[in-house]
Amino acid sequence: MTNFTFYNPTKLIVGKGKIKEIGKEISTSGFNNILLIAGKGSIKENGVYEQVINSLKENKINHVEIWEVQPNPTLTKADEAIQLAKENKVDAILAVGGGSVIDTAKSVAAGYFLKSAWDAYEGKEIKQALPIFTVLTLSATGSEMNSGAVLTNEKEQKKWSMTSSKLFPLVSIIDPEIQMSLPWKQTAHGAADAISHVLEYYFIGTNQETTLALDESLIRSIITVTDKLQVNGKDYGSRESLAWAATLALNGISKACISKGEWSPHRIEHGLSALFPEIAHGAGLAVIFPAWIKYVCKKNPSTFERWAKNVWECNEIEEAVEKMKSKYKSWGLPISLSELKIENKDLENIAEKIMEKGSFGVLKSLNKEDVLEILRLAY
Amino acid sequence: MTNFTFYNPTKLIVGKGKIKEIGKEISTSGFNNILLIAGKGSIKENGVYEQVINSLKENKINHVEIWEVQPNPTLTKADEAIQLAKENKVDAILAVGGGSVIDTAKSVAAGYFLKSAWDAYEGKEIKQALPIFTVLTLSATGSEMNSGAVLTNEKEQKKWSMTSSKLFPLVSIIDPEIQMSLPWKQTAHGAADAISHVLEYYFIGTNQETTLALDESLIRSIITVTDKLQVNGKDYGSRESLAWAATLALNGISKACISKGEWSPHRIEHGLSALFPEIAHGAGLAVIFPAWIKYVCKKNPSTFERWAKNVWECNEIEEAVEKMKSKYKSWGLPISLSELKIENKDLENIAEKIMEKGSFGVLKSLNKEDVLEILRLAY
Repeated sequence: MTNFTFYNPTKLIVGKGKIKEIGKEISTSGFNNILLIAGKGSIKENGVYEQVINSLKENKINHVEIWEVQPNPTLTKADEAIQLAKENKVDAILAVGGGSVIDTAKSVAAGYFLKSAWDAYEGKEIKQALPIFTVLTLSATGSEMNSGAVLTNEKEQKKWSMTSSKLFPLVSIIDPEIQMSLPWKQTAHGAADAISHVLEYYFIGTNQETTLALDESLIRSIITVTDKLQVNGKDYGSRESLAWAATLALNGISKACISKGEWSPHRIEHGLSALFPEIAHGAGLAVIFPAWIKYVCKKNPSTFERWAKNVWECNEIEEAVEKMKSKYKSWGLPISLSELKIENKDLENIAEKIMEKGSFGVLKSLNKEDVLEILRLAY
Repeated sequence: MTNFTFYNPTKLIVGKGKIKEIGKEISTSGFNNILLIAGKGSIKENGVYEQVINSLKENKINHVEIWEVQPNPTLTKADEAIQLAKENKVDAILAVGGGSVIDTAKSVAAGYFLKSAWDAYEGKEIKQALPIFTVLTLSATGSEMNSGAVLTNEKEQKKWSMTSSKLFPLVSIIDPEIQMSLPWKQTAHGAADAISHVLEYYFIGTNQETTLALDESLIRSIITVTDKLQVNGKDYGSRESLAWAATLALNGISKACISKGEWSPHRIEHGLSALFPEIAHGAGLAVIFPAWIKYVCKKNPSTFERWAKNVWECNEIEEAVEKMKSKYKSWGLPISLSELKIENKDLENIAEKIMEKGSFGVLKSLNKEDVLEILRLAY
């Protein structure tokens, strides 16, 4: 039982053909000079860019563009975008892409009023931020309907997160049809990411019946529709369900009555991908989460047992972990660090990186030895 | 698959001892002269009134009060409240009570800028409304976190509903501890009401996996915690879970990806309690819903079968309906019109009243004969 506040003012628009409404949403909110942030160019292939630009034109919205945001988005790119935003005196930001593009938009929105985007990650108070609009093209991080972001400081090899109530997008648009053309791997990474978000809250729950049951339903749904998408990536209903579940996984619903969340598996994964940026976030989580469960499940056994039973139809936690790994494996995800080309000799170095901000963990406070043990379990 | 927009800007604060924050919430939102709307006085017995008044004083907020809002709240009371609001030039409204008090607040908030509150129910455009704050004392209607309201026009014996995006409460506070002292009957009515809200969306769903699974989890949770509260009304965790589930049942989450909802059982119940205002809404729904399910389930069999299986562990819809009725009966709710002292000769009259706005229904368009058949099934 934890007192909680649910507040999420983002207007989320979901549906076929909805992207063309972005210009009107920006315009009726009172903005007409924006910075468009995008990734490596897939939005030019799937028609999203064209729809967005036409909508901006129709609504007489000026814009400048910055491209090449990477997965595991970087501080260098965010600071470059802030520079461009200042030069053009933009009044709002439009992110068109996946979670890394939206997280960059949040970094820019906050960093615009600070010296560097990194200040926001080092705890500087975010007193104001540019308004954010998003067109989401890959459901995974939930960033389209929350106030958090993650950024990698490449020079310092740090991948940190931050949150501020000023950073909820005003409007986010999801057209599930766009995601029909995603490579399977990205769909699977997104599903593993969304499941992980739910679990970061779920496992520290005790008797919050409504939230625990809702979280179980989210995880089961994600598994059901991801299985369907593996067979037919163009199943619109499953695309829509996966998109909505990924949003719900991290928009405040999945954590109501619980608390701020565990976040140890994410912390471990962030340390890992800070050192090995080629590891996709969802893939890293698929490897780390089962190992973390094995290591800490004794700390809140009734909830882990409930998860085993209600999600995996198992009586034993150990058995459920194996089923989870099998499911991830069947989706083509890695389930061991060795599959990620991590070598045994790297573990020490990774653990050091993870411990940079000190020990962490809710169910169990993890020190370097604990982290090494989890990494060995994941090896 | 229906395109949808999720937008719900209400800030919901849930927890022990949270009521005393209401003054600060009103004050920091920029208001200092409010109309407090309340019911028959139970808030003076359970300490809620005192907490609210102290909080208003501490935050230097002036207020006038209007009391005696009834279950099935009336137009007369709403128009009286509008008069008082105008005389005192209030800048906001604070509802302290259950759904009928909050619905009255919404009627006043909209009606303040119209000739009468009823204008809003007759379809007049709501261009502006007074800001609404609420302290909820009975979880049932979900009105604390949505933009809809129901009002009874006693003279015309009409119980109608309306909705407007201007009517989301700015802030709603729920202290589940307050509900520990509720009479059992009110808890049971609230549970039946919340279940009905979920079902009004669920049953018209088809392949919206995430929402259907989430809705099933809400219904199962409501049953689980209501059973626990029947044994021990002071179980805080169950109070909290029931409160949160009742909010989720009608704040937009339960209907995402589906549509505007079926609402035939509610329409029938509203006609019933317009003629017999002593019938509690939750009790009326407990009687009507199973009969409606029997009458229309063939129109969307796969979802009704899914409900039978996932909520009631039954292979047959018919069997699930019986289980639903048994559950309601075990909670002390009526499951037939005869228990509500309705006589056979009244049915014709009730059907006439229900048909006032013409035929209705999504799964099946219901005319007077259909409604009579459902009433007979419920008899």
